[in-house]
Amino acid sequence: MKVDGKDLRTIWLDPDEKTVKIIDQRRLPHELVLIDLETVDDAITAIKDMAVRGAPLIGATGAYGVYLATLNTPRHTIEDNFLMTECDRLKSARPTAVNLAWAVDSILAEVLKENQPDKRIATARDQAACITEQEVERCKKIGEHGLPLIDAIRRRKQGQTVNVLTHCNAGWLACIEHGTATAPIYAAFDQGIDLHVWVDETRPLNQGNRLTAWELGKHGVKHTIITDNAGGYLMQQGKVDIVIVGTDRTTATGDVANKIGTYLKALAARDNKIPFYVALPSSTFDWNLKDGIKEIPIEERDPDEIRYIDGRANGKNERVLICPAESAAANYAFDVTPSRLVTGFITERGICEATQEGIKRLFPEQF
Amino acid sequence: MKVDGKDLRTIWLDPDEKTVKIIDQRRLPHELVLIDLETVDDAITAIKDMAVRGAPLIGATGAYGVYLATLNTPRHTIEDNFLMTECDRLKSARPTAVNLAWAVDSILAEVLKENQPDKRIATARDQAACITEQEVERCKKIGEHGLPLIDAIRRRKQGQTVNVLTHCNAGWLACIEHGTATAPIYAAFDQGIDLHVWVDETRPLNQGNRLTAWELGKHGVKHTIITDNAGGYLMQQGKVDIVIVGTDRTTATGDVANKIGTYLKALAARDNKIPFYVALPSSTFDWNLKDGIKEIPIEERDPDEIRYIDGRANGKNERVLICPAESAAANYAFDVTPSRLVTGFITERGICEATQEGIKRLFPEQF
Repeated sequence: MKVDGKDLRTIWLDPDEKTVKIIDQRRLPHELVLIDLETVDDAITAIKDMAVRGAPLIGATGAYGVYLATLNTPRHTIEDNFLMTECDRLKSARPTAVNLAWAVDSILAEVLKENQPDKRIATARDQAACITEQEVERCKKIGEHGLPLIDAIRRRKQGQTVNVLTHCNAGWLACIEHGTATAPIYAAFDQGIDLHVWVDETRPLNQGNRLTAWELGKHGVKHTIITDNAGGYLMQQGKVDIVIVGTDRTTATGDVANKIGTYLKALAARDNKIPFYVALPSSTFDWNLKDGIKEIPIEERDPDEIRYIDGRANGKNERVLICPAESAAANYAFDVTPSRLVTGFITERGICEATQEGIKRLFPEQF
Repeated sequence: MKVDGKDLRTIWLDPDEKTVKIIDQRRLPHELVLIDLETVDDAITAIKDMAVRGAPLIGATGAYGVYLATLNTPRHTIEDNFLMTECDRLKSARPTAVNLAWAVDSILAEVLKENQPDKRIATARDQAACITEQEVERCKKIGEHGLPLIDAIRRRKQGQTVNVLTHCNAGWLACIEHGTATAPIYAAFDQGIDLHVWVDETRPLNQGNRLTAWELGKHGVKHTIITDNAGGYLMQQGKVDIVIVGTDRTTATGDVANKIGTYLKALAARDNKIPFYVALPSSTFDWNLKDGIKEIPIEERDPDEIRYIDGRANGKNERVLICPAESAAANYAFDVTPSRLVTGFITERGICEATQEGIKRLFPEQF
């Protein structure tokens, strides 16, 4: 995507073919800093310390991690054990990230089919590129399928600005390009549709005002940051035409686990008859689950993520305490939006209703 | 209320009868600093710069401002004009605050009935004390009427902890003692009921995690700070038994303007069948209004209140930027919760339904 007029992705292989480049997302929005990954340990650290985040990007980083492993495998011999150990270490960088294990395992399987070190390196490089391009393609498809929704609003509003509200960051920073929730937004923007995005700041980690605002701004998309409290009011006042969010895990019946606060926006959208869409690659469906509220465990994170906040003062990053030092905080990271509040899913295969029947129509092989 | 074991109010007259003491609320929760008001200008500055906030407290500060005016009136003559000018200056400190103008005007009227400077001083002092005590009494009554709601939950839960959720600060810091939304909480706590309060941090100005958390903590009430995003999840999980909030303005039909985000919590309460109460002194009803969403203008404040945040680092207060420097923000201060989402009002005269009929039953003289 565009950053100050130049094309940028969240991860790429340097032309020297020895260095994988990533954006250090911890330092956004105040600084755009690239990190060079040259070893498996570099990749593990990037994943573990959340320099990269978002399931698709974590997967791609793991994929390139396997490439770095082949590159640094002792050349004099075929070191299957070495490679397998390196891959295990990579997978344990974030053990719950399904995309990570899948990407690492699938590349390793291809690599082990080769015997020559040089062929192993070439295979890993090509497979990592392939996985990365597949992610890009899936996001692009989500954009193409979501675009008509925005275009229909443009036509209904006779060319007046289309107002989209989004929560958290399901943008290209969580993927490679396009993003998921942002894919239809970028597709519409690139078509010249006049649109504007309300960006929920998304407490406590502020992925909205740190990441979504940054990437929209750099690509040139009009946007306004609001508090997580404001969406309901904006909907009451007719200032939101459509809500599009991402998801971390979705049941086969259409319940959506996403960043905490998503459920409140879905309630407000329903109360004000505003369409509420969830954009997702089909890898996010958990085909075994039927009741999101009962079955999806919600991660409880460090309360200090609520008690402290990171920002910029005097030209440097600063962490400040924003509540009484003695007060406790509770930090639930996700909530579940019941399918009844979801207008539809935007997937790489098209749009469907948020019901088991709707999902089955697009993904019959899963049922 | 209790602060570190000692009784404290938000405002009081020093025994020297020359100094009015207030808490500088801008410095909470990190520092408890008192300010001495000795002149009308001191009172104006305290109101204007928001060292004091909340309609009842602003009213009381205005009342004591009139007392300070009488104290500093040139003694050799009866200076009606001087007093009236001082009162006009006081009232314009926050021109939209209804309580301020009312308190100042009503004391001035009593003072002007006297001719002797000493009697004027005594009258102003007694009237300011009277207005202050009336506010305390109204809040106390709200607590008494709200207590049975909490006690009923305690009985139903057979003594398990009662979980209350509140938004913003409608606590004693906004009043003199007890608060409005917090009055039933303190009443229940003082009765020994085992209760716990979920405190919405209340972005952007964080009245929840700065003020509500501070005052609950200092009084000894168990509480946990949460993001404004979390309430819906907690309600889904059965972790909230009752929601109690305050209000800035309420229509005669029961629509409630309160801090932005209140509406989202009311939607979640309704979706999870959790009682949602609004605590208010009857002075908050605007008897002329019928449709809150159409008729109540919503204040739009400085976007920098969203873009920057105040906190504590390295032993001093610090303001940090938390979004891209180039991104715009929109700062709507209130929203309107339609009466259909409100279970009832807790007033100084008792509890009523959030309907015109319900309100009329308690306040027939207004209809």
